[in-house]
Parts: sequence; C-alpha cells; structure tokens
Amino acid sequence: MIRTAIIGASGYTGIELLRLLHRHPQAEVTMVTGDSTAGKQITEVYPHLQEIYQQTVEAVDPQRIAEQADIAFLAMPSGHATEIVPALLTNGIRVIDLGGDLRLPADLYRTWYGKNPVPADVQQQAVYGLSEWFCDEIQNARLIANPGCYPTATLLALLPLVKAGAIEPDSIIVDAKSGVSGAGRGVALGSLFSEVNENFKAYKVNQHQHTPEIEQQLARVAGEQITVTFTPHLVPMTRGILATCYGKVKEGWTQRRLMDLYTDVYAGKSFVRIRPFGNYPQTKEVTGSNFCDIGLSLDERTGRLTVLSAIDNLVKGASGQAVQNLNIMTGMPETEGLLSVPMYP
Amino acid sequence: MIRTAIIGASGYTGIELLRLLHRHPQAEVTMVTGDSTAGKQITEVYPHLQEIYQQTVEAVDPQRIAEQADIAFLAMPSGHATEIVPALLTNGIRVIDLGGDLRLPADLYRTWYGKNPVPADVQQQAVYGLSEWFCDEIQNARLIANPGCYPTATLLALLPLVKAGAIEPDSIIVDAKSGVSGAGRGVALGSLFSEVNENFKAYKVNQHQHTPEIEQQLARVAGEQITVTFTPHLVPMTRGILATCYGKVKEGWTQRRLMDLYTDVYAGKSFVRIRPFGNYPQTKEVTGSNFCDIGLSLDERTGRLTVLSAIDNLVKGASGQAVQNLNIMTGMPETEGLLSVPMYP
Amino acid sequence: MIRTAIIGASGYTGIELLRLLHRHPQAEVTMVTGDSTAGKQITEVYPHLQEIYQQTVEAVDPQRIAEQADIAFLAMPSGHATEIVPALLTNGIRVIDLGGDLRLPADLYRTWYGKNPVPADVQQQAVYGLSEWFCDEIQNARLIANPGCYPTATLLALLPLVKAGAIEPDSIIVDAKSGVSGAGRGVALGSLFSEVNENFKAYKVNQHQHTPEIEQQLARVAGEQITVTFTPHLVPMTRGILATCYGKVKEGWTQRRLMDLYTDVYAGKSFVRIRPFGNYPQTKEVTGSNFCDIGLSLDERTGRLTVLSAIDNLVKGASGQAVQNLNIMTGMPETEGLLSVPMYP
Amino acid sequence: MIRTAIIGASGYTGIELLRLLHRHPQAEVTMVTGDSTAGKQITEVYPHLQEIYQQTVEAVDPQRIAEQADIAFLAMPSGHATEIVPALLTNGIRVIDLGGDLRLPADLYRTWYGKNPVPADVQQQAVYGLSEWFCDEIQNARLIANPGCYPTATLLALLPLVKAGAIEPDSIIVDAKSGVSGAGRGVALGSLFSEVNENFKAYKVNQHQHTPEIEQQLARVAGEQITVTFTPHLVPMTRGILATCYGKVKEGWTQRRLMDLYTDVYAGKSFVRIRPFGNYPQTKEVTGSNFCDIGLSLDERTGRLTVLSAIDNLVKGASGQAVQNLNIMTGMPETEGLLSVPMYP
Repeated sequence: MIRTAIIGASGYTGIELLRLLHRHPQAEVTMVTGDSTAGKQITEVYPHLQEIYQQTVEAVDPQRIAEQADIAFLAMPSGHATEIVPALLTNGIRVIDLGGDLRLPADLYRTWYGKNPVPADVQQQAVYGLSEWFCDEIQNARLIANPGCYPTATLLALLPLVKAGAIEPDSIIVDAKSGVSGAGRGVALGSLFSEVNENFKAYKVNQHQHTPEIEQQLARVAGEQITVTFTPHLVPMTRGILATCYGKVKEGWTQRRLMDLYTDVYAGKSFVRIRPFGNYPQTKEVTGSNFCDIGLSLDERTGRLTVLSAIDNLVKGASGQAVQNLNIMTGMPETEGLLSVPMYP
Repeated sequence: MIRTAIIGASGYTGIELLRLLHRHPQAEVTMVTGDSTAGKQITEVYPHLQEIYQQTVEAVDPQRIAEQADIAFLAMPSGHATEIVPALLTNGIRVIDLGGDLRLPADLYRTWYGKNPVPADVQQQAVYGLSEWFCDEIQNARLIANPGCYPTATLLALLPLVKAGAIEPDSIIVDAKSGVSGAGRGVALGSLFSEVNENFKAYKVNQHQHTPEIEQQLARVAGEQITVTFTPHLVPMTRGILATCYGKVKEGWTQRRLMDLYTDVYAGKSFVRIRPFGNYPQTKEVTGSNFCDIGLSLDERTGRLTVLSAIDNLVKGASGQAVQNLNIMTGMPETEGLLSVPMYP
Repeated sequence: MIRTAIIGASGYTGIELLRLLHRHPQAEVTMVTGDSTAGKQITEVYPHLQEIYQQTVEAVDPQRIAEQADIAFLAMPSGHATEIVPALLTNGIRVIDLGGDLRLPADLYRTWYGKNPVPADVQQQAVYGLSEWFCDEIQNARLIANPGCYPTATLLALLPLVKAGAIEPDSIIVDAKSGVSGAGRGVALGSLFSEVNENFKAYKVNQHQHTPEIEQQLARVAGEQITVTFTPHLVPMTRGILATCYGKVKEGWTQRRLMDLYTDVYAGKSFVRIRPFGNYPQTKEVTGSNFCDIGLSLDERTGRLTVLSAIDNLVKGASGQAVQNLNIMTGMPETEGLLSVPMYP
Repeated sequence: MIRTAIIGASGYTGIELLRLLHRHPQAEVTMVTGDSTAGKQITEVYPHLQEIYQQTVEAVDPQRIAEQADIAFLAMPSGHATEIVPALLTNGIRVIDLGGDLRLPADLYRTWYGKNPVPADVQQQAVYGLSEWFCDEIQNARLIANPGCYPTATLLALLPLVKAGAIEPDSIIVDAKSGVSGAGRGVALGSLFSEVNENFKAYKVNQHQHTPEIEQQLARVAGEQITVTFTPHLVPMTRGILATCYGKVKEGWTQRRLMDLYTDVYAGKSFVRIRPFGNYPQTKEVTGSNFCDIGLSLDERTGRLTVLSAIDNLVKGASGQAVQNLNIMTGMPETEGLLSVPMYP
C-alpha cells in the first residue's frame, strides 16, 4: 500500500485527491496538511467527507511528512514550491507538484508568473508529468511538475500534429474555455457567483501563464520553436475545460489521415478517447473522470483543422493526472483506481 | 457475479445505473434495452460511455431478459409497469422498478397519477424499497417498488420522528426542492434551459403524486393516519434534492434528545449521515453518492422542529438505492460498490 | 427634477439604483459616493456603465451630499447607518436606507444583528417603507427604513391574511429562497461560484435577522403578537426570491374568499399582481421589474393555505422599492420610472 | 405613433419585442399573432406580461395585419418567410424579418439551410439590417433581413478591419460562444437544462448557417472574397454572445492605430462601445441592452490581433436591432426607446 500525503487540504485539487484516492486499491492518504486549516478535523472544513475521512489537518512539516508518506502531493497555489519542495526532497520523499512552479525555466517563470523561481537545481530535477507523452521519464522521477489544466487539454490535442509535422507551426491558435473551479477556492471578486453566473468572458488575453508551458512542450516534441496564440475564457460552470485548437494543415493531410494519426498515437492510452467523425466532445461527457476526449474537423473550404478536446480540469487537468503519475512512478498499472464512468448528467 | 438488465437505457436513471454498476465488484450489466433507441450502440446515445460499455441497445423482450439476467431494473417513466412487469415475473426474474407504478394501492394511484393501475396481484407482491427501513422485506422480495426521490429524502428525515411519536402528526409540512434531472430526459418546455436557469418556482402545489407515497409510509411506521402538506420546487441545478421538513414537537423533546433519536435510529446505516448541531446539509455535499445527510434545528421560540435532508436524486433518490436494494436482495453487503466520496465541488 | 445621491456605489443595490434612476423622467443621480472606490470613475468599477454615467465616485461627505442632492439613498451593508444617517439628517437631507439598521428597535437589533443599534432618536424617526402598506407615513417621512428583501416578499404575501384575521397566528411558516445577489458583492467563501453552483442549501436556520422584521410588521397589522418560523435558502441563481408561506386558515375561508381578499387588498396597487387560480409565480417572471407576483393554494385535505410570492430581490426587494418610496415622498405617481416588462427569459 | 404587429408571439424574440416596444415612446404593438397560440390571451402564454399586455393572440392573416399595423416584425424560426412575407408586401406593409430566410442568395441558402429559398424577387428587395453599417439603405427599405445573432457580434468586430484593409483576409477565425436562448423556445433534447447546465460544447463545427452570412457581408465591405473559419459554442447561460475573432494584422498596424480605427468608425454610433486598452467585454455587461461592446488585443509575439465583442443575443442580436431598424425606417432617432442600462448583475 502506497502511503501518500496531501499538502494543501482545503483547496479544490486537494479535496479531489481525497476523492480519487479513496477508491484507489493500492494507495492511501496517511496525512493531510494545510496552513489555514491546521488543527481542524478535515470534516469541519469539508462536511461531505463525514464518515469517510477522519484525519485532522496538520501543519506542514517536511520531516514528518517524509516519515508518514512515500509520496507527497503538493496541492497548493503556485508560488509555494520553494518553501517546501527542497525540504521534502532532502527528506527523501518523492513529490508531485500540482502548482505551476516547476513547469518553466527560471526566466520564463519570472516573466509570466511575476514571482521568484525555485532554485535551479530543483527545477532541473522536475519531470513534466503529461502522462501519455512522457511516461518513461515519469517512471523514474523523484519530482513531478504536474501539468496545468489548459496545457493538458491543449497538448493532448496538438502534440500528435506537431510530432507528425502535419501542421504549420506558426498557425496555431488555442481558444480555451474553463469552468470556475480552475481559479481555486480563494475568495476573489471575479469568482463570485453573481459575477460569473449568466456571464461569459475572456481573461488574461495574450497574457496567461499557461502560454509558455504549452509552447515549451510543443517545441520539445516538434523539435522547433513554436509560438501560439492562447485565449482563456471563463464559463459559468464549475468543472470542465474545452480547448478549441486551430491550425493550417500541411499538404497531403486529409481528414482520414488525421484521424488515423490520432488513433495511432493514442492506441493503448486508456484515458484518451478519439471521437468518430462528426462527433465532438462536451465537457459533461468527461465530468468526474480522467478522460480526455478529442474530436477533429478539417474544413476543406479553408484548409484549417479544428481540434476539440475536453477534460475535467480537476481530474485529468490536475488531481487525476497526479494519481496517474503516482501509478506510473510506483510501477502500478496507469489506470489503477482511476477508471470510472463520467457523471452524466 | 450477478447479471443485471437495464430496461430503459436512454433515461437518466438508466444511465446512472450504468455508471454505478460499472464499479460494482459483484454485479454486471448483461443487457440494455430501450424502445426508442433499440438497435443503436449505447455509445451513440451516450458518447461518454465510449470505451466503457460496448452494448447494443435491444428491444424489450421479457423472455430474453429473463435468460440474460438475474435481476432487471425497470428504469422507465411511470405508466409502463403493466406492460412489462407481469411478463418479467412470469419468466422468473426479479424486478426493481424505479418508476411510481408499484408504490401505491390502485385507488390512490388512479387519483394521483391519473392512469390505470397495475393488476392488484402484481401491486401486492411489491415491497417498498426504502433500504434503511424495510431491509427484511426487501431481502426476500421478488419485486421492489423503488421509492421516489422526494419520498426518499422526506421519509429518511421524518420516519424517526413518527416512529418515536415525537411530533404532532397533523403538523407536518414538507417544502422540497429538486434539481431538474428529476423530470427525466423527456423533452418538455418546462425543462428547457432558458426556462429553468435563473428561475425558481413551485409546481404541482398540493397535487404532487409523491404526497400519498409519503403519507402511506409515514402512516405505516406511525401506526396512524398522517396527512402532510407537500410543496415541490424546481431548482436551477441538475442534481440534488433538499427537503425542509417542519413539525411541532411534543412535550419533552429537546434538541439533545432529538439528536440522540436520529443517531440511534441510523446507527450502523452507512448511507445516512447525521450532521452535528448547527450544521445543515447542502445538496452538493452528497452529489454523485448514495448518502442522505440530515440536520436538525429545534426552535425554542416556536416549538417547531426543522429537519433538513439532502440526497442526490439520481443516486439515493433512484439508481443508487436500486443498487442498494439489489445488494440486499442478493445477500451482499448493503454498501457493495456504492461507497464513494461525493463529488465536491 | 429630483436630485439624488447614492451612498455606496460599488454594491449591487447601488448599481441597481443607477440602472433604475437612469430611466426615471423626474429624478437624476447627481452624486455617487463610496469608500473603497472614491476617486475612481464609476465606469472603472462598472464597465457596463460606459457612455451612460460619467460620474467620479466621491468620498462620503454628508455636508456635500446635502448640497448636491435632495434625497440620499444609503446603499451600504447593515452596520453603517450610525456613521452617516444622523449627519445627513442634521444637514437637512432626506434619507432612504436600504440596509437593516433602522428596521428594528434597539433590543431586537442587538440580539439578531449582534451590532450596536443606531441612536434611539434616529431609529424612532424611521418609517418602515413597505410602499403598498404604509404609503401615508412614507409620504411625510424624512427617513425611510427600506424593507429587507425577504420581508418584502413575505409581508406582501401574509399581511392580507393577518389583517383579515384569516389565519391562525401561531401557524405561520415561511420557507424562503433567494438568489445569491442578496448576499451582496462582498467576497466570501460561501458566495463563490464553485460553492453555490449545482448546490442548494438552507442557512441561518431559525437565526436569520429578517425574522424579527417580519414578525414586527405582521404584529403591527394584526394587532397581536405573531411568531413565525423562517427558513432562508440559497438558490444557484443571481436574482430572485420566492417565499413559500404556510398557515392554517380559520373557519369559513374558502379559496374563493381568499382570492377576493387579495384582489381587494391590492386593488389599485400597480406592483402587486395576483395570479389566477392554479397559477403560481416564478422568479423569472418578475426579473428586473418592481413587481411582486402572488399565487394561492388552499389544500382542503389539510386546511392549510400556501401563499407563494416572487420578487426580484434587487428591485422590489431593495432598489426598486427605494425608488417607489422616493416617488411617494416627493408626491410623484408611485410608478414613475418603474413600470417595465420583466426580462424573460 | 407607429403601429407594429408581431408575428410569432410565443418565441423568445417575439416576447423580447414586446418588452422593448413597451418602453418605446413612439411605437406600440397593435397586434400579436401566432399559430400555436392563436386564440389565447398573451398572458396565458407568458404570465410575466399580466397587467401589461391585454392582447389576444390572433391567427396569422396578412391582410388583417396590414390593416392594423404599419410595420410587421416576423419573429419566427427560419423557413417561414415564403409563407408570409410576399403576402405582407403585397398588402403594402413593411416587414422586418428576424429569421434567416432573407439574408442569403438562393444558392447559399439552399446549401447551408437545406431548405427552399424565398422567391428571388422577394430576396432581392431585402436590405441587410446591420444598423451601424447600412443605415442609408435601411432608411428606404420595405423589407429588412435582420442580421443573425452571431453575424451581428462578428461583423461589428471585424468590419472596421476589412474596410481599412488592416488584416490578412484569409487569416480570420471566429470562435463564438452563445447562450442557449439563441436556439429559441422549441423543445429539443439539446436545449434541456440537464444537458446544457455544467456543460460546454462546440456544435455545427464548420457547418453553421451563419458562416456564409458573415462571409458575404465581410466581402461586400472588403470588396474581395473572404472565407472564415467559424466555430459556434453553447454556453450554459440564457443570454449573451461573445465572439473571439482572430486575424493577422498587416504591416504597420499598431495597437494604437487599431484603437483609433475602431473609435473613428464607431464615432457617433450610440450602441457600439469600444473598451479602453486592456479591458475586455463580458456578456453580462450588455445584458438586456442593445449595446455591442468591443475590446482589442494585439499580440506582438505572434502579430495576431484578437477582437472580442459582446452582445445580448436577444437584443442587439435580434429584437433590439429590429427596433433600431424600425427607428431608422421611420425617421426616428436610432436610439429611440432603446437606451437602457444593462442589467448587472
């Protein structure tokens, strides 16, 4: 039985880890920590856990975490990795960080996040945890930079194209839409129900910190520099991301050939489902599950390809992929504890 | 392995059975039938089941159902039991009916449903499947009348009171609120998004067909006639019921004693969670799970007790309780395949 | 042209006053004040006002307000009246307070609000501004305690009954449901989209501060003490209140006679619409308007009457009624600037 | 006083016309017709109109309409114009058609709508009613093809660019998002609350009938053929469209120059509001109003411009623009009866 610790108990990704790990046959949560909630019963913070979890939230103490757990999930907002990741590694515990601190080199991090980066030696140890693409590295990693929600949906949609060289690299536009839980559980005017409900908006236009994360991984697989236009939008719903990705296909790529490409690339990948022709994924069709559903449409009028991908931002876009990485890191089947039917409706 | 058939594949309770049974370690779905969808792949109707279920929806054929399954779930709207239940029973298969046709004696059914009742001999075989209260009868039943969604929330909240004689029997008011999925998947003006969203209303005021179902079961446990005022309301959300129940407590019933009553009655009942003083259940805290959460408030100013109970109408209020009854009927632990953490947020 | 000042520009009731007064032919907004937003253009705070309002938000200065305006709307959360109302009155300006500070005598205020009450001489000058019922007093008032949102919906539904003595005074239960904008624009965990959406809950059960406000006005019209059970609930929508009110009718009150009572009491009252038999109001049917729609159902099985009333909490439940009171105070027709078609859907 | 008839009383655009015309000082509704609701009081269909409109819905009779009204609004789904428009014109009444039948030449209509086009002589009389751009023609028109909701948002965003030649004509992508009321009031599975709520999806990818309407008007202003990629999405909200438009800007177009272009083009146009730098429109900021709000972002990294435009699909995207066209056609100020503060929140 793998023992896990969750650092950051009161946020949405922390609570989602508790939901997912409860049904995991080979992993258990032995420790839950949180700064603002330390000393409380977890059920005081989250009554929905009554009679399921009995833990008391503890203060963050790296040494104690390393004693109680084999792997720690860092489920805190970006900006906290420096405080805690080095100490965890020193104490010999493997770490999966769900925040953004380990995903970018120092200069890009500073530019896009406006914060101080983690020490270079820590960042260099981090393996980017996009499970379907970097499984080999994840297997041996001590430190995982779990991908962001938008990058997960976007990269799973676009990587087959850039890998195959099927698309003009300077033609990529990602128009992405997310439910509000992506903003976390912090109180903020822009997350109030009355501001979000019956409303739709773009935000951080051309300035979202997930842009360089997407570009970096595309470039890595493409073997060349790629710059994308990325526009995030806020949808009046709690969970779900739909990424609508556009690009010019190169000569010779028919809809049929593109469909074959996707089915080949994701053959044997249990969590990526390619939709048949003319069928496009809806976010509700993956809610609560670790699936990423992908649909394709090549427009002959314009020569432009539209790739749509849908995930649950809290599962495949955060905690579910983190558990998937846990499975890979510990030699378990990738799907262990994670296969479930999406909750529809 | 228990083999089950789902009759009525395209509705929300049918699809929820597929979700719940997928994680059941000792039951499987061997057959899925549906009139309007017969001949289609289930994934054509519900793309979210891609790579999970491969079934083709079949036409309803009682004999074939009896060959393929040990227990049949009838997941159709009320009014269809006469067509199919007698034939299923004749073919020797046990049946759990999620509709309302078997829950009332013929005269009440005719009055409140405005339809022809099932044959009397069929109705008399039906056991009312409120799992926590009628477990013994359910165990030996061939035919289960699975409770309605409102009655489940209401009865779990009120039965302890009427059993203990703690409440004036003519003082009961149930003000209930439901998400829209309770109306099913049939297309109707009143279920359109633009009519429901940003809207709140009561409907069928003093005329809802769940009223006599509630009264009948209260009377049965109380040992006396009970008439209730019942007002259903429609909430702009998909899942969830909150029942706010009011009654005058009799002399001598303090908040402390009432709390003891509830914890005693539901001791050992895994799916009923009694909230501590001052804490009231929210529907989101049970979403996707088979829990019924209950909170109490005794107002000393008025001598009136308020009991709040929350369920997911599609789980404990329908398909989850149906699986719970399947477990009881087949001698499995009541919780088999059903314990899961509610999806929050 | 009546000159008005709005104190508290950044909250929802303040912004709603700006919306309503914009179409008022005989009133204008000459000044907008706010503490946190002082010095900003109002369009910086609310871009939807671009090219409609040019005001700069000013700091709160009672003397300057009195110079610039004839009537001041105090659109701040409860607890701020003492700071500002006395100074405004001293400067000779009439005041309509949309908060709760002036609605209760000192002892009840202290008990239910847990704050220090306003000076007794100020509280005694305040006239309770339920427009349809206390028009004569409002006409001559210098200071209006504008009713709370729940009390408005509840009192318009119940006052005809207690005035006519049609109902047992100890039998009243009010089960009320409100959209989230009723909680204002303050950032709070419980108002976050992800906490409210797809969720329904009761809150402040038997402890809501609107309870004594309702009781006090019922008692005043009834001429006897009345205690009610009041349960507020939060609906996942932005605007709207539905109050479902229950009571035992006295001997001799038929549905016909009750309907006559309501149509008589509200004859000539433009903003109260009594629905025909069997028709019940929905909150969307009054959205954006100053209407209060009321429907009745007498249940012969129980002898209990259900009265349903719907308002837009930000209009009839706050800013609309405040403008209605402005009209009455200045001798204009009560409906001036306020008659509009609800926004449906 | 201009007399108007509304043909198609029970749909959302019809009801929105009743809302908007109620506040119009120089126009009135003298007749309301509808096939399915003929003979009913309009308040039976829409209780929110109680005490505001007394009309009885009449059957559609072109001759009688021409007697009762000066201008007829055709507020029916696409496909009905042939039945009624020729007869109305013959009877000498001017017509504003809110459906799609008159917006395309026969061949494009047949291809994209899959229906029979209106007679050529009728189609040729129709003036495309994008008020801000084709005012001169609208002034003298007998027949208006009122623009579609998506085209209105898209064209107001893109026409300044194509007119000025600021953008590569083959680089345009429109990623548009709409609330559900755009689908009308017809009952359909895809419009059910439980299917739409907590869900986000694209639909009719590369196949939406508004695509050629957009292209045709862009081409007309550009003076060259333009082909666009257009992807509509369904947002879980009732009202609102946000169009996110992408294009490559040509050499020399800075953000400053682009901003000047938009403010110049729309100078004096009361319903188009250009947002300051870094500020992007949200759909809630135009709800209930006839505004179209536009924001710009030029990304120097990619040389790509993002133009965001927000409208209320039922107002500027349908009934509001229809009233604006009525104003223009009758020589009234364009804004008559239409200036109102958006309903926020």
